[in-house]
Amino acid sequence: MRIFATAQDAEQAFYEALERGDYELMMAVWAEDEEIVCVHPGGPRLAGQGPVRESWRRILASGQRLRVRVGQSVTISGMMVAVHSVHEWIEVIGEDQAVPPVAATNVYLRTAGGWRMIVHHASPAPAAAAPPATPAEPPPRTVH
Amino acid sequence: MRIFATAQDAEQAFYEALERGDYELMMAVWAEDEEIVCVHPGGPRLAGQGPVRESWRRILASGQRLRVRVGQSVTISGMMVAVHSVHEWIEVIGEDQAVPPVAATNVYLRTAGGWRMIVHHASPAPAAAAPPATPAEPPPRTVH
Repeated sequence: MRIFATAQDAEQAFYEALERGDYELMMAVWAEDEEIVCVHPGGPRLAGQGPVRESWRRILASGQRLRVRVGQSVTISGMMVAVHSVHEWIEVIGEDQAVPPVAATNVYLRTAGGWRMIVHHASPAPAAAAPPATPAEPPPRTVH
Repeated sequence: MRIFATAQDAEQAFYEALERGDYELMMAVWAEDEEIVCVHPGGPRLAGQGPVRESWRRILASGQRLRVRVGQSVTISGMMVAVHSVHEWIEVIGEDQAVPPVAATNVYLRTAGGWRMIVHHASPAPAAAAPPATPAEPPPRTVH
């Protein structure tokens, strides 16, 4: 089982898992012993281990190959909890259809097993700017 | 200036402010010295004090009278940060048009000036169940 030393490490693994369709890695990112919440773009609010993990199993089993870019992060970091607001640009490789950008709120908790995701709330953000060619991230800001 | 002793107090004030169109109360709910993020249903991600406060000024100046019900909360509470995932049912008083339910992720930070909102991410949740006649909330769960 992977241990994520920072919320940023967990976030990187989250988007790697999405891009690669890697269910095991995606499961390693989510907290195991907590309430967890996930809203996929346009989808219902899913709460609890069963519904959230089952939704990812279905999504990642689709066999679609994705290119995922993430940027324009706003980061609020504490000792135990970190909140990352990002934009996601997801392309389905081999399909011309443009997917609108997504605004995502990702919340991470520092658990006994390292930093884990507890909330992923994603919704279409049609007005978001194009992804930066080379994403320039602001430094994380520590609030306490 | 109101001081909110708990995240729940801040959340109650947030929805009171929305229902009453009370801009001063809404501003008292949001953190003043932090990064803040707000996504209105279907809207772009707003980041920073200026864009977030300006959006609320416009929304609350509309003069619409609203009835706001909130329920089905999932709460993750820490010493310094609390995350509330809720459903919102908003009716415009005097209009027949049904507004779809909204899934909202609300993040609160314990600041020197009490608990304040730092993130409100709301998106339409058409599949959400109807609001409970008498909202039954699970007890908050403390994770650390």
